[in-house]
Amino acid sequence: MTALNENPVTTQPTDDEIFDAHVGGKLSLGVTASLADPRALSIAYTPGVAKVSSAIAQDPSLAAKYTWAHRLVAVVSDGTAVLGLGDIGAAASLPVMEGKSALFKTFGGLDSIPLVLNTTDVDEIVETLVRLRPSFGAVNLEDISAPRCFELEAKVIEALDCPVMHDDQHGTAVVALAALRGANTVLGKDIANQRVVVSGAGAAGIACAKILLAAGIGEVTLVDSRGIIHAGRDGLNPVKEQLAAVTNGSGLRGGIAEALRGADIFLGVSSSQVGEDLIASMASNSIVFALSNPHPEVHPDVANRHAAVVATGRSDFPNQINNVLAFPGIFRGALDAGARRITEGMKLAAADAIAAVASDDLAADRIVPSALDPRVGPEVAAAVAAAARVDGVA
Amino acid sequence: MTALNENPVTTQPTDDEIFDAHVGGKLSLGVTASLADPRALSIAYTPGVAKVSSAIAQDPSLAAKYTWAHRLVAVVSDGTAVLGLGDIGAAASLPVMEGKSALFKTFGGLDSIPLVLNTTDVDEIVETLVRLRPSFGAVNLEDISAPRCFELEAKVIEALDCPVMHDDQHGTAVVALAALRGANTVLGKDIANQRVVVSGAGAAGIACAKILLAAGIGEVTLVDSRGIIHAGRDGLNPVKEQLAAVTNGSGLRGGIAEALRGADIFLGVSSSQVGEDLIASMASNSIVFALSNPHPEVHPDVANRHAAVVATGRSDFPNQINNVLAFPGIFRGALDAGARRITEGMKLAAADAIAAVASDDLAADRIVPSALDPRVGPEVAAAVAAAARVDGVA
Repeated sequence: MTALNENPVTTQPTDDEIFDAHVGGKLSLGVTASLADPRALSIAYTPGVAKVSSAIAQDPSLAAKYTWAHRLVAVVSDGTAVLGLGDIGAAASLPVMEGKSALFKTFGGLDSIPLVLNTTDVDEIVETLVRLRPSFGAVNLEDISAPRCFELEAKVIEALDCPVMHDDQHGTAVVALAALRGANTVLGKDIANQRVVVSGAGAAGIACAKILLAAGIGEVTLVDSRGIIHAGRDGLNPVKEQLAAVTNGSGLRGGIAEALRGADIFLGVSSSQVGEDLIASMASNSIVFALSNPHPEVHPDVANRHAAVVATGRSDFPNQINNVLAFPGIFRGALDAGARRITEGMKLAAADAIAAVASDDLAADRIVPSALDPRVGPEVAAAVAAAARVDGVA
Repeated sequence: MTALNENPVTTQPTDDEIFDAHVGGKLSLGVTASLADPRALSIAYTPGVAKVSSAIAQDPSLAAKYTWAHRLVAVVSDGTAVLGLGDIGAAASLPVMEGKSALFKTFGGLDSIPLVLNTTDVDEIVETLVRLRPSFGAVNLEDISAPRCFELEAKVIEALDCPVMHDDQHGTAVVALAALRGANTVLGKDIANQRVVVSGAGAAGIACAKILLAAGIGEVTLVDSRGIIHAGRDGLNPVKEQLAAVTNGSGLRGGIAEALRGADIFLGVSSSQVGEDLIASMASNSIVFALSNPHPEVHPDVANRHAAVVATGRSDFPNQINNVLAFPGIFRGALDAGARRITEGMKLAAADAIAAVASDDLAADRIVPSALDPRVGPEVAAAVAAAARVDGVA
């Protein structure tokens, strides 16, 4: 029933088609105030605007009512981890950020501005956003390399009194949790009894591990390019060290093969391919989320021979785990509520709201709503706004 | 024949009307790429957008073609000199900057983003814009206090390889010169034989003095709150010192009264009121531009008893000198030409283009086009682009 399944990508767009669609960029500025005649001009510009500026100078809280900033998301990147392309720089990252702004508008009804930065210094990025603070109402960090992204996000949250989220971490994590809720309902499983193998300990992997722990999963086995992360392993960065303390309760050692043996869930967010024999070694009725794009860690046709539920990041297979299901509604809800920050409770509420939209038509190949389902953004926004009030940040 | 004269502001807008028009701000983001179905999404976002980003990473010059940045003006303010309100801060300046962005769109067809800064440190503002450089194509500095604005503009021009202009300086100066061209045509006068008194040595006064000198005016007498500026006067800031060396060839001393006696042109860009007797002391067929807003230095009804041509900054009197006649076309022309900077020649060309639009219907009360005349923006843009090529900056 999803729009996605009704209109699959049957013919691949040509390069010419893609470049033609990008000429001049993908955004424009709209004007919501009339400037059509001198009287309208005297309201929206001088002398009328002086009254509005004076009022805000007297009472800064009025900026939230009389400017666009309180509904404006800054989409911020330094271009260090753009899609699968790596560190291609700020200018080359801009088409992606324009696309992100387009998604914010289309699925969250939110205005945004892409801000791409010619610096990769964490403190300089924080300082820049602090200086620009009155210009926007929230910050979506995007395509920033790990482990810098963890330090950057923490510092920006600390420095700014507004919603801040690194989408590559939490957008992916929220949708993965929503998909797991859907899969568990289909399979009649309980998250508290499951062990998940998270393959990849970058931005998405760390956030997925954290949200699954927050959601009460039985056990997380976190695997990076050097194997299973465990307490005491040499050379762990601070974030991995922190995760080592709360994962791998079974004390597993080894690589992805040792991790997957008997596991209930595979959650791939690295580009490492996983062989069919490893998927076959998982527990019965296993769940496989192979989210690497465009090449899933295991092809869904292969995974389906062994797993009970399979999802990918691709739009041309069932169960697309796409963070567009999460970030427009999360920011919209946070801004609607006037939240000062985005809490773990708000992220969990977002996941539950996405799962709830899928629940009326749930099946093994429909564990999440379509990426284009127009119900998702408003439902997520309402749930996130409510959670912000419960958590006392609004 | 102008829209302005057809639709004067007959009833003053009420406060309620003004505030109602500002609820939610005056801008929105528009999306020019379709996201309506999975195929469109795969063109404008992943995986298609990766090809565009890769291409820009390989050849950075392609950013000008495939992003919105090359047509995007950053409207930048620190809120230190907002309209006549003074230093009201960044947040309170935002409604004015939103208005400016609306004017850029309406009269120049240009997209822009307001960036208001929580710092008034010149070097920090420059540094911030350098870091954000890949996000925009030009910088309009706005409502920044003098004399900091002179240092800031010079440093931003030096630091960035794109068009940069402080509109409070040069927008006003360009339109004042255009108006003088019109007045001189009506009166059959030659700028080379005229002496102008510029009252006010802030952002607009300094720029007006400079552009009139560049246009070949006979003599400039520059007056600030302490009187006529002359070489050797104590306590001049560096910008006034520079102007002292090239103005006041007659060696006048004293205040505004001594300056105006026998002068051909009064150009008021301060809030200092000027008595009728002083206007009466000017040369015959004098020209009075009383641009202070909303209270002109001399009421036009008073000035008209003595002067041959009178102009103000107000929309409810003839001859409105409004910089919306200049800045949209200047930036549009500079960006159309791919100019690396805005030269004196481009500003002079803008003034001539504005004067040319007025020339087909010229009269003492129609020396400039209406602020809403749709012909002005494109004519100014074409002239500025041509001048950029002549000046070798495009």
